[in-house]
Amino acid sequence: MLILADTGQNIKVEMKTFNVAFLGVGRMGTTHLRNLAALPDLHVRVVADRDLAAARQGQALARAERATDDIAGAIRAPDVDAVLIATSTGSHAELIEQCVRAGKPVWCEKPVALTLEDTRRVAQIAEASGVPVMIGFMRRFDPGYAAAKRKIAAGEIGRVERFRAVSCDFTPPPLAFIKTSGGIFVDMLVHDFDMARFLVGEIEAVSAWGGALIDPGYVDAGDVDTAVAMLRFASGALGVLEGARRTTWGYDIRTEIAGSQAKLVIEAPRMTPLLDYRDLGYGGDQYPNFPERFEAAYRAELEFFFACLRAGTAPAPGAPDALESLRVALAATKSLREGRPVRVEEIQ
Amino acid sequence: MLILADTGQNIKVEMKTFNVAFLGVGRMGTTHLRNLAALPDLHVRVVADRDLAAARQGQALARAERATDDIAGAIRAPDVDAVLIATSTGSHAELIEQCVRAGKPVWCEKPVALTLEDTRRVAQIAEASGVPVMIGFMRRFDPGYAAAKRKIAAGEIGRVERFRAVSCDFTPPPLAFIKTSGGIFVDMLVHDFDMARFLVGEIEAVSAWGGALIDPGYVDAGDVDTAVAMLRFASGALGVLEGARRTTWGYDIRTEIAGSQAKLVIEAPRMTPLLDYRDLGYGGDQYPNFPERFEAAYRAELEFFFACLRAGTAPAPGAPDALESLRVALAATKSLREGRPVRVEEIQ
Amino acid sequence: MLILADTGQNIKVEMKTFNVAFLGVGRMGTTHLRNLAALPDLHVRVVADRDLAAARQGQALARAERATDDIAGAIRAPDVDAVLIATSTGSHAELIEQCVRAGKPVWCEKPVALTLEDTRRVAQIAEASGVPVMIGFMRRFDPGYAAAKRKIAAGEIGRVERFRAVSCDFTPPPLAFIKTSGGIFVDMLVHDFDMARFLVGEIEAVSAWGGALIDPGYVDAGDVDTAVAMLRFASGALGVLEGARRTTWGYDIRTEIAGSQAKLVIEAPRMTPLLDYRDLGYGGDQYPNFPERFEAAYRAELEFFFACLRAGTAPAPGAPDALESLRVALAATKSLREGRPVRVEEIQ
Amino acid sequence: MLILADTGQNIKVEMKTFNVAFLGVGRMGTTHLRNLAALPDLHVRVVADRDLAAARQGQALARAERATDDIAGAIRAPDVDAVLIATSTGSHAELIEQCVRAGKPVWCEKPVALTLEDTRRVAQIAEASGVPVMIGFMRRFDPGYAAAKRKIAAGEIGRVERFRAVSCDFTPPPLAFIKTSGGIFVDMLVHDFDMARFLVGEIEAVSAWGGALIDPGYVDAGDVDTAVAMLRFASGALGVLEGARRTTWGYDIRTEIAGSQAKLVIEAPRMTPLLDYRDLGYGGDQYPNFPERFEAAYRAELEFFFACLRAGTAPAPGAPDALESLRVALAATKSLREGRPVRVEEIQ
Repeated sequence: MLILADTGQNIKVEMKTFNVAFLGVGRMGTTHLRNLAALPDLHVRVVADRDLAAARQGQALARAERATDDIAGAIRAPDVDAVLIATSTGSHAELIEQCVRAGKPVWCEKPVALTLEDTRRVAQIAEASGVPVMIGFMRRFDPGYAAAKRKIAAGEIGRVERFRAVSCDFTPPPLAFIKTSGGIFVDMLVHDFDMARFLVGEIEAVSAWGGALIDPGYVDAGDVDTAVAMLRFASGALGVLEGARRTTWGYDIRTEIAGSQAKLVIEAPRMTPLLDYRDLGYGGDQYPNFPERFEAAYRAELEFFFACLRAGTAPAPGAPDALESLRVALAATKSLREGRPVRVEEIQ
Repeated sequence: MLILADTGQNIKVEMKTFNVAFLGVGRMGTTHLRNLAALPDLHVRVVADRDLAAARQGQALARAERATDDIAGAIRAPDVDAVLIATSTGSHAELIEQCVRAGKPVWCEKPVALTLEDTRRVAQIAEASGVPVMIGFMRRFDPGYAAAKRKIAAGEIGRVERFRAVSCDFTPPPLAFIKTSGGIFVDMLVHDFDMARFLVGEIEAVSAWGGALIDPGYVDAGDVDTAVAMLRFASGALGVLEGARRTTWGYDIRTEIAGSQAKLVIEAPRMTPLLDYRDLGYGGDQYPNFPERFEAAYRAELEFFFACLRAGTAPAPGAPDALESLRVALAATKSLREGRPVRVEEIQ
Repeated sequence: MLILADTGQNIKVEMKTFNVAFLGVGRMGTTHLRNLAALPDLHVRVVADRDLAAARQGQALARAERATDDIAGAIRAPDVDAVLIATSTGSHAELIEQCVRAGKPVWCEKPVALTLEDTRRVAQIAEASGVPVMIGFMRRFDPGYAAAKRKIAAGEIGRVERFRAVSCDFTPPPLAFIKTSGGIFVDMLVHDFDMARFLVGEIEAVSAWGGALIDPGYVDAGDVDTAVAMLRFASGALGVLEGARRTTWGYDIRTEIAGSQAKLVIEAPRMTPLLDYRDLGYGGDQYPNFPERFEAAYRAELEFFFACLRAGTAPAPGAPDALESLRVALAATKSLREGRPVRVEEIQ
Repeated sequence: MLILADTGQNIKVEMKTFNVAFLGVGRMGTTHLRNLAALPDLHVRVVADRDLAAARQGQALARAERATDDIAGAIRAPDVDAVLIATSTGSHAELIEQCVRAGKPVWCEKPVALTLEDTRRVAQIAEASGVPVMIGFMRRFDPGYAAAKRKIAAGEIGRVERFRAVSCDFTPPPLAFIKTSGGIFVDMLVHDFDMARFLVGEIEAVSAWGGALIDPGYVDAGDVDTAVAMLRFASGALGVLEGARRTTWGYDIRTEIAGSQAKLVIEAPRMTPLLDYRDLGYGGDQYPNFPERFEAAYRAELEFFFACLRAGTAPAPGAPDALESLRVALAATKSLREGRPVRVEEIQ
């Protein structure tokens, strides 16, 4: 079986059923459990959470065999051959290590850890063991980013020259969280650094400014709520980055990559495929009438008239056009009045 | 000199200065006079209107030599060699005839007349005389319609199969005007019949329905305010048409032409190149947060993880990616704190 | 538990687990089975298909208890309390009747049948029995159509005046299918009639034209491949409809509803949230340079200059603005050269 | 008379005719002369250029009284009471000074000069004299930027938090020009600094990086062809800026301003109001068929069915809906076959 992974890799897959342990039934855990339920050829053997009630809710969602509050036990269980981790950040490094030591392939929500030391240790252990470890930088799997990656990899935009990312949350997290978050770049904009590396390549230098424009409390929490940065890539490409902890118009994620041949924009799509011409403010911005809408046409037709006179060619449309269109209009009027289709040749 | 007329004709032009009479300084006359003033190699010799004060305003706008209320005299004036007519509809046929008899090339606002007889007579007189007569179906000169014409003429959309037009005014005209207008098809939707003929070809049959949905007064005036029609073209192509005398969201003109190879949509462009994310209702429609925005990505990454396990390939992104992105995030944090650019290699 | 159904109904739900029989594992059946697998609080007891191998594939997809080729038996099974039908069209009416007689709530893919007689009989039996029967007109559940329904129901667009639908398949079905399909209106455009009724109300009269523009074989098959129709609603509203069996630019579904207060457009959203500025033809259509992009601005600034002189007010921007912007530009140049942030006050 | 200037100022204007001298008939001069010709209540007394032939062409365009190669004389001419300068950059400061000394109001193309000294001297002389001096930062008069200014001034977007500008030319200028241009920030991105100041306020600090990604020749010319910068405003707002000397997809100018209440995007509008569904790549990106387009709908309808069963309410649409839509489809089929409108009540 051949799967076209959206990241641009084609991989051959033998059908094999996996027996999965799922760890952590919080907000993201619930999302992942729902997705897991729709995947074929999987058995979710065990759902584990320190809170047994949460584990049981997860068990029901994924139609899992059992629920437990013994997380380490779930990893070691002999009937488990792959582990998914959606617990809180602080436990990621330790749980990944347990999986690797048990020889169980593991997928873990980002981040691995908030320090270089812990992250580097996990990377080294994983590499040394040969056990598959995947980290949930999910943007790489978004159809827009994945399509951009394929186009760039195929050389379709030429040499990448400029990168731009904007990332803004809709609702800010509580200040209590901010204090332990690692700061706006580590906690939130790391996704944009991942996209910069995924789409353009390694980053050589960064320059950043930030401020507390939304809430002065961020200063006391040792962080900023709004930040901008410039990126210099090893390739020579340059980039800019903006981020903020809240907007008033929704979750605002947009990425642009300009190359020597084309420019790609991964934009925020609309959630609902519906245009409301009043919501769109067209009442204010739409043309009020034909003189405004056809301003350029009115200019062009006079230019054309005199250009024809100068060229000695007949200007058109002329009276015969007016005659034909009038016949159609009168046929429509006749159809309207008589309640039947009317052939234009009836109008003489 | 070579001019690319937007209607798709390339015409050779010798530079010659024209001496123009302009007739009728009403609303449209003013628009045309402004455009005339910006055209090179023209002298507006005379602006004529039954109302001498209006003629004088027109004279100032176009920097014309003189103003007059003698319309017939302006046509015959020996120093005039082309005439532009923007008087009221009822006088068009008669004035075009005067121009043709005087041997003066003439451009006239649409329509020629509201009856077949008058329109046909003008068409015949013009044709017999050889004097250039052009009628102001200005939509043919709109950049959108003109580009559509060129694409269709070049065969780019293949055989035309379907045509669709919607034409709605923003503000309805007074009922007093409706009574003498000739009806919605003759007065207003004739532009769409002209576009149908311009873009697709001759129309063979029409079927129409209408109603007074906006204002029952239209019934007493012998007209409808809302109408739909089907068109059957001589080529076999089929079309639909909608029209209404008012909207609440602006002047609404949109035309679609579907062919065997492509579909063209001439849409109402925005007047102002500005998006206001609140006006756009993005607060309501934009994604509230990452789980909604990246719903498909979260599904795809788990699929990919298991596909890799099945394929025996290493899933990515893995811990080394997490490590690299974290280094960049920490470099940005350092730059923010120290107020200087930071090289990523400083972060070890 | 309160669910906001996308159709605008809020319904109270008690949690209850359903035991489901699923009938028919063809193309649409597979789609429905995948969706079923992700729904909580369901047990798929049995998947039935005349082809036992297909039934077994369905069983695996939905993690069902058993598979069978005994469709009638699956309906009657005592451990089944709801039935989903995705078999071929010809069997729908008979299977719905079996379910109703067995007292089992049933959901069935559209259509019930291709004749009025069969459809009416099923409707009557269902109504008499009181057993819930739902038919799969899935467009009512699309976020765009559902949102349009809610806005219309809430009176947000005022009185509905005009309706427009276009429905075109990307790839035409084989001619063999066409012969037994019931024709373009019954087989394909019935979705648009359902949307017309869902969004506007009952239809009183229809007028239609069609032709074989894509493939003359449709004539021999007793059908057309391209059709247009006008609709007159009981409310007085008017509508137009276009349909075709193939396009060359994708599946083309668009619906517009114009009311006295606003206009709604349910459009085909983009599949991939990525813009490619070369694909978009911006190389051809984008402005080549500032004189074209800022044409209106160049006109407006001269108007403003003279308006200021006439008003006796100082025109702006003036030389102090030029000075300030130049200082910033020189600060940027200095930063570029010296590799550090530069305060504008350094530039004196 | 009251004029709504697009920059948000309402100014009272007395009608007065101005006698204008126009200096410099190059590329931009020609654009300005055309606009001048369409302005009412002006006499262009004299068009001056060092090249008398160019001056004469300008005279014809603007229907001016006379042409000359004596620029200083044109400024001093007693019948001239306002001067427009579109000569080459090097002469701007000197000519503005001549106008100010002659007491003639002056409009001049940007920039005043490439050095702070010259620009400051002109600003001081102009201010001391009280003679009106306006500099051609035309973006302030673009409908998009002007509308953004009005919204920001009216407080509609709340406190401005982030600014972003991208400015890229389509075709790069010759390297010979680059050497005397003052560099990418002074020559080209100064427009963005002007927009930053116009829309957000004074800039306090700048940090910039650049490179020669397009053409290594820029390095020898002492410049870069691609640049990014961060801006820190006096208000605390932060901004990013990107610029490049060429794109392959057109002139690319986009500005974004994010505030605490809304976000404004001034985008590059399309030149031609025409969508070509093949150019747009919809053949690749458009949905291929109904299962893809209505994926969410198929999920939602099954959820709804079971939610209704749980709630004990009748699920809909049901068989009566199927019956009604089928009647309409059959009426359309009958109309198609019989060539006449068909009332749905005929179908029983």
